[in-house]
Amino acid sequence: MSVEHKFQKLATDNAPGQEVRQSAEGLAELMRGEKLEGRVVDFSHGDVDAHPPTPGSFDLFSAGFQAGGSQAYTEYRGDQGIRDLIAPRLAAFTGAGVDAKDGLMITTGTQGALFLAIAANVGRGDKVAIVQPDYFANRKLVEFFEGEMIPVQMDYLNAGEAEAGLDLNGLEAAFRAGAKTFLFSNPNNPAGVVYSAEEIRAIADLAARYDAVVIVDQLYSRLRYSGVSYSHLRAEAAMNPDNLITIMGPSKTESLSGFRLGVAFGAPRLIARMEKLQAIVALRAPGYSQSVLRSWFAEEPGWMEARIAAHEAIRDELLSVLRQCEGVSASTPRAGSYLFPQMPKLAVSPGDFVKLLRLQAGVVVTPGTEFSPHTAASLRLNFSQDHQAAVAAAERITEMVNRYRA
Amino acid sequence: MSVEHKFQKLATDNAPGQEVRQSAEGLAELMRGEKLEGRVVDFSHGDVDAHPPTPGSFDLFSAGFQAGGSQAYTEYRGDQGIRDLIAPRLAAFTGAGVDAKDGLMITTGTQGALFLAIAANVGRGDKVAIVQPDYFANRKLVEFFEGEMIPVQMDYLNAGEAEAGLDLNGLEAAFRAGAKTFLFSNPNNPAGVVYSAEEIRAIADLAARYDAVVIVDQLYSRLRYSGVSYSHLRAEAAMNPDNLITIMGPSKTESLSGFRLGVAFGAPRLIARMEKLQAIVALRAPGYSQSVLRSWFAEEPGWMEARIAAHEAIRDELLSVLRQCEGVSASTPRAGSYLFPQMPKLAVSPGDFVKLLRLQAGVVVTPGTEFSPHTAASLRLNFSQDHQAAVAAAERITEMVNRYRA
Repeated sequence: MSVEHKFQKLATDNAPGQEVRQSAEGLAELMRGEKLEGRVVDFSHGDVDAHPPTPGSFDLFSAGFQAGGSQAYTEYRGDQGIRDLIAPRLAAFTGAGVDAKDGLMITTGTQGALFLAIAANVGRGDKVAIVQPDYFANRKLVEFFEGEMIPVQMDYLNAGEAEAGLDLNGLEAAFRAGAKTFLFSNPNNPAGVVYSAEEIRAIADLAARYDAVVIVDQLYSRLRYSGVSYSHLRAEAAMNPDNLITIMGPSKTESLSGFRLGVAFGAPRLIARMEKLQAIVALRAPGYSQSVLRSWFAEEPGWMEARIAAHEAIRDELLSVLRQCEGVSASTPRAGSYLFPQMPKLAVSPGDFVKLLRLQAGVVVTPGTEFSPHTAASLRLNFSQDHQAAVAAAERITEMVNRYRA
Repeated sequence: MSVEHKFQKLATDNAPGQEVRQSAEGLAELMRGEKLEGRVVDFSHGDVDAHPPTPGSFDLFSAGFQAGGSQAYTEYRGDQGIRDLIAPRLAAFTGAGVDAKDGLMITTGTQGALFLAIAANVGRGDKVAIVQPDYFANRKLVEFFEGEMIPVQMDYLNAGEAEAGLDLNGLEAAFRAGAKTFLFSNPNNPAGVVYSAEEIRAIADLAARYDAVVIVDQLYSRLRYSGVSYSHLRAEAAMNPDNLITIMGPSKTESLSGFRLGVAFGAPRLIARMEKLQAIVALRAPGYSQSVLRSWFAEEPGWMEARIAAHEAIRDELLSVLRQCEGVSASTPRAGSYLFPQMPKLAVSPGDFVKLLRLQAGVVVTPGTEFSPHTAASLRLNFSQDHQAAVAAAERITEMVNRYRA
């Protein structure tokens, strides 16, 4: 594959945060009605002004800066003292030991961890099982390294309340077809579903049977709503720890994205590769920022509960607004801060509708096509927003649906 | 190339900052004499405690944090306002216009910029001209993307005082052999030489004649010593701007490495690719850190002159210590903070000598083998250190040379 071709496939035109670079050409003639007034809401990512960074994070950064050289120039895998501090917390959270020295690294965001983990496992022609729908970068990562994606469907719309709806036969078929790596997010981005204990056990069993590496993106695994139980793949007895990388980070629930931090933990042989690549990709996660991890999983009592409650309240009110709109179908996210409602048939293409929402209604969303070719009719909303502004924006979405209904 | 093989080639055992992971096995039997006492000096990177970050950098970070979401979630290529601010400064410094919107991006350190620039140009089997010696990651980047390196020699030891000693016939031969990309650092890391106006013009001419892309790493181009003139490739009339990426950053001279910032500027078509890849590598350079660039090239009057003077004084005293040691040959760095002295014949291998220096003399240096297969007898010292501690450490190096002399 030529370099040109590789980069043509790496389109970011609809990527969250990049909307500012889109052209509005040709949209004027499609427009129906006037502009809808209201505060602009950017559902493409969370609003860290409405849900601020964890208390004390800035002071920890400041202490890192004061520490000077030792914090500016850490090992490529991140500061040993900080790894020693957070390893037992990650172990307690996930239910299995974490090796601070050889089995944990700090990365430039969870995106950095995903990049390194895929690079450490996937070369030209290697087959990788990818869930549809799932985080849009997963597919792009496989394509960038010239791997071959084998899609596995997740029927989240018809799944039981306590499961994701992964097609386990499809996953086994992917392994049988030669997939040596399986990458998935749990909770799922964009659908907000959580894999059941049975699904996680089945994934562990299948990975063991086919000797496959699993990369599980658990970015949102702390933000779980009332009554939701969660199973960590790394705590499964059947899961070979030498074939597993778990990825987390404080960018979302904890609103620390501006510090660019993530972690990857698991198989030392894979972490070793990831660190070698880190050395030529970015040297290390930002040194002073790494200090901010000191309070991770050690926030003040009640903080996480309050954050979850605030998000659950927004979720519920948005769902109630969206569900009042005829033809909109929205399942209830069980974790994370993504809503993924399906729109009814419209008179404009899904892509144009997303642009019209931005230009006419002051609402930025991510098109469903980013997550699966089968979810073009859906929109992804990150509802980690100011509560009232988000509700008003959801009302504008329903007004727009009514205007553009086919 | 299999993924395993690719990562075997990506060795980081001798990479600066990773020495802490080395084993000391087998060294005890080689040791001659006692441990040399003295403050440990890590010449593998600069000491930001001895030469602190530019004044006001922390306050700018703090303002970025206060700005909140808009600074946490910038475009992948970095905040537009900051790009608007620094583009004219970079243009003034380098002598050619910089397009803030489409021709400039903020990266995760200059390492991040190098990674993206090579990825945007080099695919499997593509030939890349690389200087020997040059920054050790250059070769690794080409190998990671399965490109083919064509080495071009730089005879810095015998070059005139105002030139680097690049083998221009060798460069032309590389282009004639099919190299479509040329990557080099100016000032050169590790040799500290600066390319003459004639060399830069010749590079521009050759690149134009063979339609090659040039990536020039100018990380150290602000730290130039008395009487040194500098030519920016991007200001050359013959250089096709659509084939050039210039890389800089505030990690070294300005001691801002802990914030993880760099910039790449030049051809919009290449910047566009680099941003697409940034999206899956790290999303963006750390958001709050980006704010720190606001003072870049706008430091308080006299600050840069004082920093240069401090480094020139350290350089001169280290050279005088090293040159008193029989058989050590050290040329004078004309810019940057690297010394690259050649050792006389020793009774131990260069690799073991580097380990012995660390264990027995409390001196960390980077082995010459990292920069070229032809410079195994040299050591690289980043002399951006506490002045007295560096001089004492250089004296310990000469004592060790005397002990281990063949």
